[in-house]
Amino acid sequence: MEVDIKQKILVFFRKNAENYVSGEDISTALGVSRAYVWKYVNKLRNHGYEIEAVPHLGYKIRSSPDKLFEYEVKNGLRTRTIGKKAVHYSESIDSTNNRAYELAEAGEPEGTLVIAESQFHGKGRMGRRWVSPKGGGIYISLILRPDVGTDEIPGITLIAAESIAKVINRITRLSAGIKWPNDIVVNGRKICGILTEIKAQPDRVDFLILGIGINVNTPPGKIPPGGTSLKNETNLSVNRVGLTRDLLEEFEKDYQRFKKEGFSLRETCKGLSLTLGRKVEIREHDRVIKGTAVDIGEKGALIVKNGKGALQRVFSGDVTLFG
Amino acid sequence: MEVDIKQKILVFFRKNAENYVSGEDISTALGVSRAYVWKYVNKLRNHGYEIEAVPHLGYKIRSSPDKLFEYEVKNGLRTRTIGKKAVHYSESIDSTNNRAYELAEAGEPEGTLVIAESQFHGKGRMGRRWVSPKGGGIYISLILRPDVGTDEIPGITLIAAESIAKVINRITRLSAGIKWPNDIVVNGRKICGILTEIKAQPDRVDFLILGIGINVNTPPGKIPPGGTSLKNETNLSVNRVGLTRDLLEEFEKDYQRFKKEGFSLRETCKGLSLTLGRKVEIREHDRVIKGTAVDIGEKGALIVKNGKGALQRVFSGDVTLFG
Repeated sequence: MEVDIKQKILVFFRKNAENYVSGEDISTALGVSRAYVWKYVNKLRNHGYEIEAVPHLGYKIRSSPDKLFEYEVKNGLRTRTIGKKAVHYSESIDSTNNRAYELAEAGEPEGTLVIAESQFHGKGRMGRRWVSPKGGGIYISLILRPDVGTDEIPGITLIAAESIAKVINRITRLSAGIKWPNDIVVNGRKICGILTEIKAQPDRVDFLILGIGINVNTPPGKIPPGGTSLKNETNLSVNRVGLTRDLLEEFEKDYQRFKKEGFSLRETCKGLSLTLGRKVEIREHDRVIKGTAVDIGEKGALIVKNGKGALQRVFSGDVTLFG
Repeated sequence: MEVDIKQKILVFFRKNAENYVSGEDISTALGVSRAYVWKYVNKLRNHGYEIEAVPHLGYKIRSSPDKLFEYEVKNGLRTRTIGKKAVHYSESIDSTNNRAYELAEAGEPEGTLVIAESQFHGKGRMGRRWVSPKGGGIYISLILRPDVGTDEIPGITLIAAESIAKVINRITRLSAGIKWPNDIVVNGRKICGILTEIKAQPDRVDFLILGIGINVNTPPGKIPPGGTSLKNETNLSVNRVGLTRDLLEEFEKDYQRFKKEGFSLRETCKGLSLTLGRKVEIREHDRVIKGTAVDIGEKGALIVKNGKGALQRVFSGDVTLFG
C-alpha cells in the first residue's frame, strides 16, 4: 500500500513534469485525501526526491535520487511474476542472497525480489566475497521455484548470465560475454557475477536463489582488481532503475522458456561464451581438469577435451582461462 | 554437562547392576556431590528409569525406558564425529530434517544428530509424508558437511542406504535390499526411507541433511500399506538404542571412505540393489522413463536401457518396479 501510493504519486508528478500540480489534483486522481498526499510527498522528500512546493501553484518534481526503491523498479515493469510480487528493498544488507533465502524458507513465492544499495557481506562463489559498495552497483536476488532436479541448475545460471549479457550489449553496445559458469566479462574484465544457491532434495529443487551483482556506475577505485563497471567501459552513467527493469524482463522471458523447453537457449549461451575454444584449468573440489573447452552440454555442463582427446563433463568449478 | 552426568550415572549403575550402590560410591566415582547425584537420579526417574532406593543399601537400577535419549545413544558410541558432538533429542517434533536444517543453517558442525520419538510432519520424498508414530520407530537426521558438488549426493544417499541394509542384515538375518534411490525393502515391503536435503551452490554443497526413518518395533496397525517393521518380519523386538548406535558406526565408516575415495562402495550398493535387472518406470519431474535398470553409475545414478537398447542416466525420481 505504501509502495503503491508512492509509486502513483511519482507517476502523476512525472506525467505532469512540466507543470505544477496541486495537492487537490493528486488527491482527486488517486482517490485519497489531501492530508494523505501531503504525508507521502514528505516521505518521498525524506527519501531524497526534490519536490518543490509553491503556494497557490502546487508541487513540481525537480529530481529523483539514484536509488533502486521498490516503487521505482516496479513502476512500469512489464513482467508477470519476476519482481511483480513482493520486492524487499534495503539501503544496506548483509547479503541479498541470505535475505532471499530466509524469505524463501518462510514460503515467499517465485518472483520475490530482494534489492540492496550495498551489501556488507556480499557473497561470491566458493565462499568468496562479492565487493558491494554503495553507489553504483545493482545487487539483487530472486526467489525461483522451478520444478526441476539439481542437475538443471547450471542451465538456469547460464540463462541468467545470457539474459544479462544480452541486455548489457543492447543498451551499451559493449560486447559482454559469459565466462562459464557464472561471470559476465567485458573487455577481459569482470562486470557481473551470479551466485545461485539452492535448497533441494536430490529429486527436486525446493527453491533457488539467483543472486546478481553488477558493477554499473561503480567508481573504479571501489572495484577489485580484474573487475570493471559499465560506466568505466563506456564513460556513461547508466540508469540503474531502468537497467534493473530490463534485466528482470529479459530474464523472465528466458526463464519462462526454460520452464517450458528446458535449456533450449544452449546455442545462444554458446554464442555468448568466452570460454569455448580456450585452454582451461578447472578446479572442482579436489580434482583439477586441464584441457580445451569444446562445448556446453545439454544441461549446461562444460565439456573439456584433454590432451589425449578424451572428453570430460564439468558440472561446476573454478575456471582459469589460457591461450 | 547434564547429558554427561546422566550418562555417567547410568554407566555406573549398569556396571554394578547386581549390587546396590550407595550415593557416596557414585559421588566418589564421579567426583560430584551426593546432593548432585540425588538430583540426577531423580531426573532419570522422571525420564522413566526405575531406580530402587533402599536405606543403608543404596540404589539399584531395575529397568530403563525404551527411549532414544541422547545419553543412551552416545553411551559407548564408537564414532569419531557422527553423533559425537551435539545430539538433540525430542519426544515429538515436526520433522527431524527441518530441525537439523535449522541447526545446520545456524552453523552446527558435521556429525550433529537430531533424534525424535515421533514426528508430526515426518517428511518423505517428493513432498510426501513419512508416517512417524510414537513407539517403535527410529527417526533421526544427521548434519553432514562434505566438500562435494551436488552431483555426489545420490552416492551419499546410497551409501547411507547400504550401511543401514548391512546393519539390518547383520543383526536380524533378514535380506534387506535397496530400492533405488533411497528405500530399504524387506520381503517386498518398505522398512526404511531416507530423505536427503541439501543447501548448495552449484559448485559445492554447504551442508546435507540425511534423514532416516526406520520401522523397528512399530506395530503393524501404525504402518502405512506397503510397509513393514523389523519386529513384524522377525517377531522379535529390537533394541532401538543399540540399533541406532550400530547404524551411526556403520555409516561413519562408509562415509569416511566416501570422503576419501568417492563412491567406491558402488559395487556393494549394486550387490544390495533390488532395482537392477528389473523393469522400471520412473517419473522424474515431467518425463517418464521406461526400460530395464541395468546399472548404477559412477556417482549413483540409475542406468536404464530402453526398448531400443539406448541407455539413459536417471539422476533421481519415483520408481515403480515391474517383472
